[in-house]
Amino acid sequence: MLDKTLRMNYLFDFYQSLLTEKQRKYMSLYYLDDFSLGEIAEEFDVSRQAVYDNIKRTEAMLEEYEEKLSLLAKFEKRSEILQQLKEAVDKQATSEELMALLESLDTLE
Amino acid sequence: MLDKTLRMNYLFDFYQSLLTEKQRKYMSLYYLDDFSLGEIAEEFDVSRQAVYDNIKRTEAMLEEYEEKLSLLAKFEKRSEILQQLKEAVDKQATSEELMALLESLDTLE
Repeated sequence: MLDKTLRMNYLFDFYQSLLTEKQRKYMSLYYLDDFSLGEIAEEFDVSRQAVYDNIKRTEAMLEEYEEKLSLLAKFEKRSEILQQLKEAVDKQATSEELMALLESLDTLE
Repeated sequence: MLDKTLRMNYLFDFYQSLLTEKQRKYMSLYYLDDFSLGEIAEEFDVSRQAVYDNIKRTEAMLEEYEEKLSLLAKFEKRSEILQQLKEAVDKQATSEELMALLESLDTLE
């Protein structure tokens, strides 16, 4: 399991197009630019609690999208097989080995 | 461009988890089981117009999700490269050629 911040970074990356403009801004400042809740509150002239609530709700939404679409989970599985494929090519694996790995990529979809 | 029915089948496949239960049922009967609007209306004891409106709205939602997440477009690009990889393995391509294709898969994400 990824650490919370890294996981939120990934989920934000995959699902940000489904968020509102405000959600995107808060999440981006908090998770990508490492602003504190207080700094974001000041920036947008709202209460720290309002920022906190918005971010918590957005985190829950991102997890809900991941539960439904599994984009992060599928990405991780594809990355793993892709890594195995590169290593197999590197060590001149047989056509059969390469084909088996390609098939496992295919059936992931 | 895929034909409309095939495209809706794909989009439904990718995004059905984001639809409501009713949307899923109507779309599934209409696109997968080839029911007519009239047959679905009868099945659910609603008007043909209600079924038509619901399906049109759902189609628009699916296209909107695709515009935001591009799951079908990305799937098509990955499939194409995967096909090229299989052909490359089949004809005993060099490690360099295979690695270049694997890199292009990697940068798709």
